[in-house]
Amino acid sequence: MATTHLYTDAEVEANPKVKAVFDDIRETRGSDFVNNIWRALAADPPGLERTWETVKSLMTVPGELDAKTREMIYIAVSVANGCSYCVHSHTAAAKAKGMSDAEHGELMQIVALAASTNHLVTALQVPVDPEFQVE
Amino acid sequence: MATTHLYTDAEVEANPKVKAVFDDIRETRGSDFVNNIWRALAADPPGLERTWETVKSLMTVPGELDAKTREMIYIAVSVANGCSYCVHSHTAAAKAKGMSDAEHGELMQIVALAASTNHLVTALQVPVDPEFQVE
Amino acid sequence: MATTHLYTDAEVEANPKVKAVFDDIRETRGSDFVNNIWRALAADPPGLERTWETVKSLMTVPGELDAKTREMIYIAVSVANGCSYCVHSHTAAAKAKGMSDAEHGELMQIVALAASTNHLVTALQVPVDPEFQVE
Amino acid sequence: MATTHLYTDAEVEANPKVKAVFDDIRETRGSDFVNNIWRALAADPPGLERTWETVKSLMTVPGELDAKTREMIYIAVSVANGCSYCVHSHTAAAKAKGMSDAEHGELMQIVALAASTNHLVTALQVPVDPEFQVE
Amino acid sequence: MATTHLYTDAEVEANPKVKAVFDDIRETRGSDFVNNIWRALAADPPGLERTWETVKSLMTVPGELDAKTREMIYIAVSVANGCSYCVHSHTAAAKAKGMSDAEHGELMQIVALAASTNHLVTALQVPVDPEFQVE
Amino acid sequence: MATTHLYTDAEVEANPKVKAVFDDIRETRGSDFVNNIWRALAADPPGLERTWETVKSLMTVPGELDAKTREMIYIAVSVANGCSYCVHSHTAAAKAKGMSDAEHGELMQIVALAASTNHLVTALQVPVDPEFQVE
Repeated sequence: MATTHLYTDAEVEANPKVKAVFDDIRETRGSDFVNNIWRALAADPPGLERTWETVKSLMTVPGELDAKTREMIYIAVSVANGCSYCVHSHTAAAKAKGMSDAEHGELMQIVALAASTNHLVTALQVPVDPEFQVE
Repeated sequence: MATTHLYTDAEVEANPKVKAVFDDIRETRGSDFVNNIWRALAADPPGLERTWETVKSLMTVPGELDAKTREMIYIAVSVANGCSYCVHSHTAAAKAKGMSDAEHGELMQIVALAASTNHLVTALQVPVDPEFQVE
Repeated sequence: MATTHLYTDAEVEANPKVKAVFDDIRETRGSDFVNNIWRALAADPPGLERTWETVKSLMTVPGELDAKTREMIYIAVSVANGCSYCVHSHTAAAKAKGMSDAEHGELMQIVALAASTNHLVTALQVPVDPEFQVE
Repeated sequence: MATTHLYTDAEVEANPKVKAVFDDIRETRGSDFVNNIWRALAADPPGLERTWETVKSLMTVPGELDAKTREMIYIAVSVANGCSYCVHSHTAAAKAKGMSDAEHGELMQIVALAASTNHLVTALQVPVDPEFQVE
Repeated sequence: MATTHLYTDAEVEANPKVKAVFDDIRETRGSDFVNNIWRALAADPPGLERTWETVKSLMTVPGELDAKTREMIYIAVSVANGCSYCVHSHTAAAKAKGMSDAEHGELMQIVALAASTNHLVTALQVPVDPEFQVE
Repeated sequence: MATTHLYTDAEVEANPKVKAVFDDIRETRGSDFVNNIWRALAADPPGLERTWETVKSLMTVPGELDAKTREMIYIAVSVANGCSYCVHSHTAAAKAKGMSDAEHGELMQIVALAASTNHLVTALQVPVDPEFQVE
């Protein structure tokens, strides 16, 4: 199932703009495997390039947070947004970057707890304490 | 605004079950300040107790993840679920547990990136790569 | 705050199509009070009429479920969708139709539990048991 | 997978109320193909009729917006609400009504951008500028 | 598809903590069938135990609301959160607890109506009427 | 309310990276008014720059869709994601780019209809028709 065609490697090779992004993905990750989101985005080269540039700058370059923590945050958002593909791909990425089964279990418990208090607070329409406001 | 009454300290004192939870919150956190979610939950003592027990066991006891990381995951879920109160309270908590402004900025950029690819993937209905499936 | 003008009673009187809907709301509910959603919808008479007809047929006419249960289901959806106005208005409606504080407390606990297992299941990507599928 | 039975054409023929709606769908669309949402709704004839009447009046009759734009808006909402079936069916409809691949690509980029700034703004809890408020 | 391994009965038997929860599920429900969510949670025994204790106390013990109503509220939240597994499992549970096809149809119409007015109100940014505010 | 400080014009002037983005916003839009999202993002210059570059390239440069349609799609996503600030700012932008009151009314009706069928389909777990699948 998909609403768009997934580019094969042969089709990627035939399109220089798409090929340049795929080459950079492969080089940055040090792996020949390119997963389906990039093959689905390939039909829109500017969108493909924009998405990859942002992913590359935020998820592959050293920054404030370590790579494992970033992937766990990505999982948390993807769960709350109900994105099955993203949960699968970023759970795999987090494991590849060192997330243990115990950390995975705790992550899921925190995500579930946050969801439950998010709903409780919305049901109760709790007003924000002045202590929490920056301005 | 609220759909329920917020218990004052005097009302808390008058209800032994509620008082026991508030006492534990104050002792566990080492602070007299008890924020509004607990005051709103006080009208339902079993719900108050259940919620606090889960928060206490997952957010205040040493576990797999450090306290700051847990709060950042909590923020990520709360943003995706659109809970204004939770975003305020857990951003304050994360800062109290050491989140720097630079880490806060990176967290928000990752949350925003995850949201954008969550929506892209849902729009494209990208099929899950077999490589990402555990079983 | 609003993205549209809220019709005053004088403006309602001046527009026969809007007035007809407001008259029916007042007669159906047996009350002169017309809340803000209808005043906001008044700028789009066909939308106002369509929305009221559906609300009237599903929420005010005897059906399969009793009036209180319907309002509690309405609250549950509104919480999950993060609609502050709807949570306020349907909590007031549920109380007017007999929801006790204890029932309100239990409703919120079930909503919070459902949210937590919704997120757990999405994080785990649990496959549907064949026993649950109708076809 | 479904939580309800999908009506076959033979079952539709045997139920006059359901048949009347299916006949109108086929005539309005000028096609014999009736997709699964209507077959799933057929078990609840009043719900089937109410849903079709609204779809018919908003999506098939000339109005303020052209047919292609309406379908693109429908896709945008369906993506944000995570409805896989709806994304598939309305992407097909938008293409049938003239959406080009380039327009599809731009639509997805705008949806993704909106999602990212939605999350950024919620994370930052940005107060609404007075300039944006109607009243 | 899953991001975690699903425990078989043999694996459950080999883990005393997991076995204790599974035994309690089977005894509480009076059935040998244990559905996949518990098999997916089994890798994290504290999470498994916490989740089951909450489900047991809120969904199987007599309380304020009857068992069928609780399941219908659970369905409503699960639909709004887009959890396919949960919609399937709680629709089956609601039917097992007496939900008729007509009640199921009405539930879905109310959920759909709530979703539509949730979105209308958010689009219009309707301010909360003072009459609806508790404090 | 906010979880971050909103930069004043004086603070913007004092930070060359932030000033460069604000200057470009003012020049691109032909207006001195810079709304709060940019003032909130200013504390994270790389995030500010990345967000503005994407907004600029997708929302201000001629593309496949006209400016008004883009803003209406932005509103639709923002409503479904429950972002109050975004609904306010993009409704103002859509009106500035020519959206009439009648178009606004129709947009809201389509958003509400999409939300209702999104929820119906999720409740029914309707399987995707093979006719809608690209591959």
